[in-house]
Amino acid sequence: MQRYKCIISYDGSEFSGYQIQPSKRTVQLVLEDVLTKMHKGNAVKVSASGRTDAGVHAKGQVIHFDSPLSIPENKWEVALNSLLPEDLAVLSVEKTHDSFHARFDAVGKEYRYFLRLSSKRDPFQRKYAYQYPFQLNMDAIREAIPYLLGTHDFTSFCSAKTEVEDKIRTLESIEITVDDDMLIFRFIGNGFLYNMVRILVGILLEVGSGERNPSDLLEILQAKDRKCAGKTAPAQGLYLWKVFYE
Amino acid sequence: MQRYKCIISYDGSEFSGYQIQPSKRTVQLVLEDVLTKMHKGNAVKVSASGRTDAGVHAKGQVIHFDSPLSIPENKWEVALNSLLPEDLAVLSVEKTHDSFHARFDAVGKEYRYFLRLSSKRDPFQRKYAYQYPFQLNMDAIREAIPYLLGTHDFTSFCSAKTEVEDKIRTLESIEITVDDDMLIFRFIGNGFLYNMVRILVGILLEVGSGERNPSDLLEILQAKDRKCAGKTAPAQGLYLWKVFYE
Repeated sequence: MQRYKCIISYDGSEFSGYQIQPSKRTVQLVLEDVLTKMHKGNAVKVSASGRTDAGVHAKGQVIHFDSPLSIPENKWEVALNSLLPEDLAVLSVEKTHDSFHARFDAVGKEYRYFLRLSSKRDPFQRKYAYQYPFQLNMDAIREAIPYLLGTHDFTSFCSAKTEVEDKIRTLESIEITVDDDMLIFRFIGNGFLYNMVRILVGILLEVGSGERNPSDLLEILQAKDRKCAGKTAPAQGLYLWKVFYE
Repeated sequence: MQRYKCIISYDGSEFSGYQIQPSKRTVQLVLEDVLTKMHKGNAVKVSASGRTDAGVHAKGQVIHFDSPLSIPENKWEVALNSLLPEDLAVLSVEKTHDSFHARFDAVGKEYRYFLRLSSKRDPFQRKYAYQYPFQLNMDAIREAIPYLLGTHDFTSFCSAKTEVEDKIRTLESIEITVDDDMLIFRFIGNGFLYNMVRILVGILLEVGSGERNPSDLLEILQAKDRKCAGKTAPAQGLYLWKVFYE
């Protein structure tokens, strides 16, 4: 048996998220089906760095799997891509040690959220960015960010549906860049709770639109109550961009 | 009755082209359905600057239609977009004179063709660019372009399926720009024949890959025979970018 680490990318639009669910098209299901086919029907299990929700995209998701096949490292990528559907691609495959785990060994992640600031519809961006036609006070957003950085209990920024108990995470940075009409939020942290990035984007938009003050974020964090934060920003703007390992 | 001129944009991926065909989802059908709904069931006919094929995109297609409705000019865009599907958007609506015709008054068009130069699959570009994993000799392509510019009989660069008799067109310019791994061809001319841009891209790729010499284009033009030119480049890289009027 050899363990392989892969970087994969997917357009989340037509997937019901990453994780296997009964009678849904998920990324894990498609990957395991293809690997099982390559292994002549012997089931192959795939482990990822974490789940992504329906409609959420990935530019650099990381998975691992074990295989007894003697395929040269550089042929795996071609073999897998030849069987995978067009909305899911393997970007790299490398041999790794038997104890590597895509989820438990991850030391950090980068997510990006794409917000299209326009009142005009764009058919080409409908699945790849969240259209936001209102004015945003960028100074207020930049003033709010420092309240979120560092190590906090992010209970207020986590879906109540989570099963995770420890909600303490460290948010290393939130950077904002502007590219034409696209506002891009980059979040880097040691880990993210369920819906955390989308709830953070939601609250930053409420600050930017004047519905909240930047300093409200302090109280929201301290409340440790999901109901204190605002709406969850839509899935289609979110990309799992990169997973970091030691 | 008032005539309106609209600029529209569509993601061609899920349309069977622009023109109405029996039991197909086409751009014209969707537009006419929405307008007919707005006119309480009275059929409204839409005329475009020209057809686009299945899978071909539009950033600036132009259409016109007539309406007796007394909707203020600036409300039309909102009204239409509220009824149109997400892959088809109206970018502008303006009143025009009764003799304006989207097709007959067009004096030129710009098409762009997006070629992604990469051996890596990109799930996000699969419907929006043609992936080309081979080396291209850009100098050879630039040497070939002048043979195509100017006024020619473009029979060799027109699908044999066309019904148009006059195949003389003037190609004003072909510009090539590079943006990261994307090679963008911009074609401007007074009119384009059926599949002409895709056949032109196909032959330029054959020149770039060394299968043909730049000067072969002279003979191909003179042959006035579709069989002399090469393959038609795939639809998903092509965008009707702009239509010019006096």
